[in-house]
Amino acid sequence: MTTQTPDLVAEVRRFVRDEVVRLEPLFFKHGFNAVLPELQTLRLEVKARGWWLPPLPKEVGGMGLGLGEFAQLSEEMGQTPLGNFVFNTQAPDIGNLEVLLKHGSPQQKERFLKPLADGEIRSAFAMTEPEHPGSNPVWMDTTAVLEGNEWVINGHKWYTSGFDGSSFAIVMCVTDPDLPKPHARASQIIVPTDTPGFQQVRRISVMGEEGEGWASHSEIGLRDVRVPRENLLGERGKGFAIAQERLGPGRIHHCMRWIGICRRALELMCQYAATRELAPGKALGTRQAVQHMIADSYAEIHAARLMVLDAAEKVEKLGAEGARSEISTIKFFVAGVLQRVVDRAIQVHGGLGMSDDLPLSFFYRHERAARIYDGADEVHKTVVARSILKEYGLDISL
Amino acid sequence: MTTQTPDLVAEVRRFVRDEVVRLEPLFFKHGFNAVLPELQTLRLEVKARGWWLPPLPKEVGGMGLGLGEFAQLSEEMGQTPLGNFVFNTQAPDIGNLEVLLKHGSPQQKERFLKPLADGEIRSAFAMTEPEHPGSNPVWMDTTAVLEGNEWVINGHKWYTSGFDGSSFAIVMCVTDPDLPKPHARASQIIVPTDTPGFQQVRRISVMGEEGEGWASHSEIGLRDVRVPRENLLGERGKGFAIAQERLGPGRIHHCMRWIGICRRALELMCQYAATRELAPGKALGTRQAVQHMIADSYAEIHAARLMVLDAAEKVEKLGAEGARSEISTIKFFVAGVLQRVVDRAIQVHGGLGMSDDLPLSFFYRHERAARIYDGADEVHKTVVARSILKEYGLDISL
Amino acid sequence: MTTQTPDLVAEVRRFVRDEVVRLEPLFFKHGFNAVLPELQTLRLEVKARGWWLPPLPKEVGGMGLGLGEFAQLSEEMGQTPLGNFVFNTQAPDIGNLEVLLKHGSPQQKERFLKPLADGEIRSAFAMTEPEHPGSNPVWMDTTAVLEGNEWVINGHKWYTSGFDGSSFAIVMCVTDPDLPKPHARASQIIVPTDTPGFQQVRRISVMGEEGEGWASHSEIGLRDVRVPRENLLGERGKGFAIAQERLGPGRIHHCMRWIGICRRALELMCQYAATRELAPGKALGTRQAVQHMIADSYAEIHAARLMVLDAAEKVEKLGAEGARSEISTIKFFVAGVLQRVVDRAIQVHGGLGMSDDLPLSFFYRHERAARIYDGADEVHKTVVARSILKEYGLDISL
Amino acid sequence: MTTQTPDLVAEVRRFVRDEVVRLEPLFFKHGFNAVLPELQTLRLEVKARGWWLPPLPKEVGGMGLGLGEFAQLSEEMGQTPLGNFVFNTQAPDIGNLEVLLKHGSPQQKERFLKPLADGEIRSAFAMTEPEHPGSNPVWMDTTAVLEGNEWVINGHKWYTSGFDGSSFAIVMCVTDPDLPKPHARASQIIVPTDTPGFQQVRRISVMGEEGEGWASHSEIGLRDVRVPRENLLGERGKGFAIAQERLGPGRIHHCMRWIGICRRALELMCQYAATRELAPGKALGTRQAVQHMIADSYAEIHAARLMVLDAAEKVEKLGAEGARSEISTIKFFVAGVLQRVVDRAIQVHGGLGMSDDLPLSFFYRHERAARIYDGADEVHKTVVARSILKEYGLDISL
Repeated sequence: MTTQTPDLVAEVRRFVRDEVVRLEPLFFKHGFNAVLPELQTLRLEVKARGWWLPPLPKEVGGMGLGLGEFAQLSEEMGQTPLGNFVFNTQAPDIGNLEVLLKHGSPQQKERFLKPLADGEIRSAFAMTEPEHPGSNPVWMDTTAVLEGNEWVINGHKWYTSGFDGSSFAIVMCVTDPDLPKPHARASQIIVPTDTPGFQQVRRISVMGEEGEGWASHSEIGLRDVRVPRENLLGERGKGFAIAQERLGPGRIHHCMRWIGICRRALELMCQYAATRELAPGKALGTRQAVQHMIADSYAEIHAARLMVLDAAEKVEKLGAEGARSEISTIKFFVAGVLQRVVDRAIQVHGGLGMSDDLPLSFFYRHERAARIYDGADEVHKTVVARSILKEYGLDISL
Repeated sequence: MTTQTPDLVAEVRRFVRDEVVRLEPLFFKHGFNAVLPELQTLRLEVKARGWWLPPLPKEVGGMGLGLGEFAQLSEEMGQTPLGNFVFNTQAPDIGNLEVLLKHGSPQQKERFLKPLADGEIRSAFAMTEPEHPGSNPVWMDTTAVLEGNEWVINGHKWYTSGFDGSSFAIVMCVTDPDLPKPHARASQIIVPTDTPGFQQVRRISVMGEEGEGWASHSEIGLRDVRVPRENLLGERGKGFAIAQERLGPGRIHHCMRWIGICRRALELMCQYAATRELAPGKALGTRQAVQHMIADSYAEIHAARLMVLDAAEKVEKLGAEGARSEISTIKFFVAGVLQRVVDRAIQVHGGLGMSDDLPLSFFYRHERAARIYDGADEVHKTVVARSILKEYGLDISL
Repeated sequence: MTTQTPDLVAEVRRFVRDEVVRLEPLFFKHGFNAVLPELQTLRLEVKARGWWLPPLPKEVGGMGLGLGEFAQLSEEMGQTPLGNFVFNTQAPDIGNLEVLLKHGSPQQKERFLKPLADGEIRSAFAMTEPEHPGSNPVWMDTTAVLEGNEWVINGHKWYTSGFDGSSFAIVMCVTDPDLPKPHARASQIIVPTDTPGFQQVRRISVMGEEGEGWASHSEIGLRDVRVPRENLLGERGKGFAIAQERLGPGRIHHCMRWIGICRRALELMCQYAATRELAPGKALGTRQAVQHMIADSYAEIHAARLMVLDAAEKVEKLGAEGARSEISTIKFFVAGVLQRVVDRAIQVHGGLGMSDDLPLSFFYRHERAARIYDGADEVHKTVVARSILKEYGLDISL
Repeated sequence: MTTQTPDLVAEVRRFVRDEVVRLEPLFFKHGFNAVLPELQTLRLEVKARGWWLPPLPKEVGGMGLGLGEFAQLSEEMGQTPLGNFVFNTQAPDIGNLEVLLKHGSPQQKERFLKPLADGEIRSAFAMTEPEHPGSNPVWMDTTAVLEGNEWVINGHKWYTSGFDGSSFAIVMCVTDPDLPKPHARASQIIVPTDTPGFQQVRRISVMGEEGEGWASHSEIGLRDVRVPRENLLGERGKGFAIAQERLGPGRIHHCMRWIGICRRALELMCQYAATRELAPGKALGTRQAVQHMIADSYAEIHAARLMVLDAAEKVEKLGAEGARSEISTIKFFVAGVLQRVVDRAIQVHGGLGMSDDLPLSFFYRHERAARIYDGADEVHKTVVARSILKEYGLDISL
């Protein structure tokens, strides 16, 4: 880690606190599009300060930070739902950027990676299908058939985050249904969202909100959608392999962000406990039940942070595949911490915690999904146990 | 309990399932007012069937059921957020009805109780103030001063549920600030919502929704609001005593309703587990983690139901004050069960559970407050412990 | 329930408190045999008062109480590890009594049931084998082969509770290994413990104690043990069916007893909280953390008791098989409550709770097995879930 | 950390596994004294290998390792209850060594430190009194009065670990009862155990065992015990300050050891899950409930280890006082992990887990105290919360 990092972390913290957090009320009340102009201004500011896209290499406009360095920044960004967007590290764009960087053809890089890295467009990643469980990704109905020089795609996806208003989506399709190995049957194809037949069925109303723009999740349909053969991303049949590559670091990014949320929640909890009075002169924080909620949260967040930094280090050394068990471990462990900490923060705030006057309600609602997306707790626990039991001579097929 | 009850319960169950549940999607998508016309129709149907206002006496149009009998119906109504409204047993109206019935003057009964019992108007109960904690109800800034034959009220309240569109509110006011006993200082006053100076500051956005009409919580202001002296409800200085009377049964009503929610959540969980496939021919319910979530939920709901019926029996025998410890016990115990069961139901459903396609998201969001309103868990646990420790010779002032 | 029960319960409570509890220190320090003479005296007293063997019919010397009536007495007996022994309702003898009563031949009743019911001898039930999991009871290596008029038994059992000093054991043996249905292969055979070849390998040291006499668990071996053909208990091939019959009520008996333990633990916790001082004049019970441990324990015990009484009622109406799901539910639910309540009681007592000066250490150690014996939590949860999911159309083979 | 550490850790691991673990059955069955001769032999071996007293400086025969380095060794030693004893790092001797090293006079070092460091004698630390709570250490009845050149000590202590067979005890006594600051009233005095008036009241039976020698906890009395003035350890009135110094590192030592226990428990759990069959060919580890117990344990142990290493680093940088919050955090966090992991390991083993055939029962019983000794969970959580809330402007006196 470079010696400048602590300063950088402090500066980013200040920036997020001073500039981004103040946009929350507008975002919570009027939605993403209402806050977008101000977010764009902040993005320019971030670029000007040289903080753009920290985890991506300098040649595409990033800072070239390692995963461990970025982890610390990500915790700062994660404190507000708008943080990552300001640095262009928001999901799914950051994942798409990483995949395009590694597997994109020169033309794809020019057409899709460049404007995405510059923050001029947004993108989506269409994988999950409503008819099939996310825990069994190879069970998929969306197909792409090569007709001449075009892929003809038909299918149905949902929870396509950020699709609303995006310029293109990377779509997981079965291209080779007859291959014996299920994991070799799918490919990733880049589909501009204005391609005929590519429909946004709806923005799914999630936890009380349809959302809009980046802050929404769409159900989409693809009916005889045609894109050029060159829109294949990476090799044919490598769809799952490439998806796996993105999901590893993606999970770490989520965990880092969650720790930022936890810290914010703990901070709010402590501020309120220190200042809210139960009776004149008697602060809420004098109650032992409140104290213990604070101490438990502090301990769990501390554990989560150390585990994420440790996993980041392992990923840097061994790659995402080599650190698979560590990634699965933080995925379910940190998601659990997140849910408990936010829940305690709401409890400490009482009625105020239920309201959208604070960001706690947003975290409580939308981050309930942390235990579900990118692999449910139950799936990751099983992955970890299988890997451990293998060392003891027991090989379990899921 | 009358011998007809089982049949009645089954019929109400069928009615709620067939007629009320189908309104949920409209309610979730377009709000309370959109669904109100159909709710009014259902109310007429309920009246026609003789199921109106089950816990209230026949002379005001109710069924005159005991608390234990009503508990079973309430579980049926509780399965959907709209259930109680259809039977006119929704909070806070049911509580206001009970208070008016017991403490209202003949004129108050004619003017306020009658149309409320008939379902022609709605009402509110304004107690909590944003500046003071709900756990210390005697700490209150809203005042009512008698000037001639009028009460002049000034104050600030929030979480005044159902205020939006209501005809009157019962407002807790400090009328005798100089009395030595804090519990003797407040009175309840009926204030028509169209009284000059009575302002709706906002519908508080709660868990992502402002809501509207009955399904909303308002922040309100009272500036030199004048009502006739006769609008005092019950005796002067009995504000807290009367509030206490309503809160006991109110908590039981909530608990009964929560069990209905739990049952619905368990049912959805089981249906999904039995039919959703992880792989062709392999149902989600074959996973042991899912089975254990079902079994734990079943056990906890069973425990909760028995405790609520037991508490209802004690309230019928001893009154709410005599069953105070039992009421506090179910308040925190059932609220905990509720949160865990709904959480598990979401986890079993994965992404679908996050969406507003199912009622789980509504329960998850809005019933997070169950551990807060009408006394936070921490307060009720302390109440229970104090009462037990008193038997062991230790007297603790809170 | 007879109207006398409340009085009877109060009297038994007083007796257990006054007469049985005082033997605990001797038992904890010097073991079962040291306390046996006094227990025998108390047994005579119990007989004299007409309280002997409450759940068994009068013709064998019992009180003929129903399961619900006995539940309340059992809670009283359960408060001390020695309680049930004094009433001759201790496991495994009570289970053996019930089985002999229902399935025993006249000769078996005369020779085995009578002295057991009279409290002159003790008995054991040998089912579990160290080589095979209790969760799969049909997987068993102990065999009984009919040679002429004798069964020749070979096998290895453990956790044969109360074997030490017992007069006979009922032994589960595979008698018909070639039958297609595994559940039809085993039979129960009565084996006097002095039969040649019947060896006590050891008293298993369990949670720090080998124990002795009734309060011990043995590992036993059977090498060419020969007993007369007439020692077959019930029909050949009905071993599992008869075992199932005993296990249902047996689980309820355990649950009832556990509630007694919980009540004792809560009582100790409260006494200590009310009297132990943290500082002069400041009782331990003034701490909110302690209060919440008390309230949580109270609520959980209350839930457990209501569930056990409810299950007892269902067993009386539908039989153990018809109430299988209810029995499985209380088995894991109450075992969980038991562990948490005892754990909290220890925590409240601090160092004293770790010592054998109180019964808490005994409960903590020996009742850890409550989540294991007679079906582990995980097995019962799966049983409950399977039964529920069947109603939703999903049939799962374990 | 020196570059040799990884090798050293591996070698110590092998030694503990090969040489110390095999003594467990004898220890569990026949007690400490039975295994002492073999332990002495191993101690010689440890000295020969240069592994003696790793955390103490070389001038007293130790290895001079830093806290972080020792943490890794301690995890290895902690895997068996006998591990630390073999390296002479067992509590309370290691704490007494550290205190004597820092505060002992040359004569005290010669007479007490030297033989203790050499492993020729054992020692005790007498602080807790049965009449007063450990959470309020300044409330103490044991007094030492200076008469001429002698301290005359009277008092009553318990949970004096390792007193049985020890050569001396360091005794906390009130020497200056009239000072205004309670924390300035006590001093530490070295008392040889053969001093007249120094009585061993009993070895307290703890969790089913009186234990003996080092593996026991005594209740002791001091009646007019006289020791020379020079036996004062450190300055008069610094009793609490010195105690505090020992408790910080002491807590870290405990946490390190607990992680060793956790690792052992997880290892046993995995071995059993991988090999025990539920049915022919179907391992226990194929059950999802077992997998999740393994994954949760793995995650929690990983978190605990990272937190302990992080705290060790902070202690090395800032001293125990500067890292007080970190130490309190790991104290309650790791104790919780310990209890859950051992509990799960027992559950996975079923009946075998209850028996003393495995070390799990020992850990389950004796390490229940981890949440109590050296500050109960509740105390440490309050310490952490107070320290955090202070940053938010709220100052809470306990």
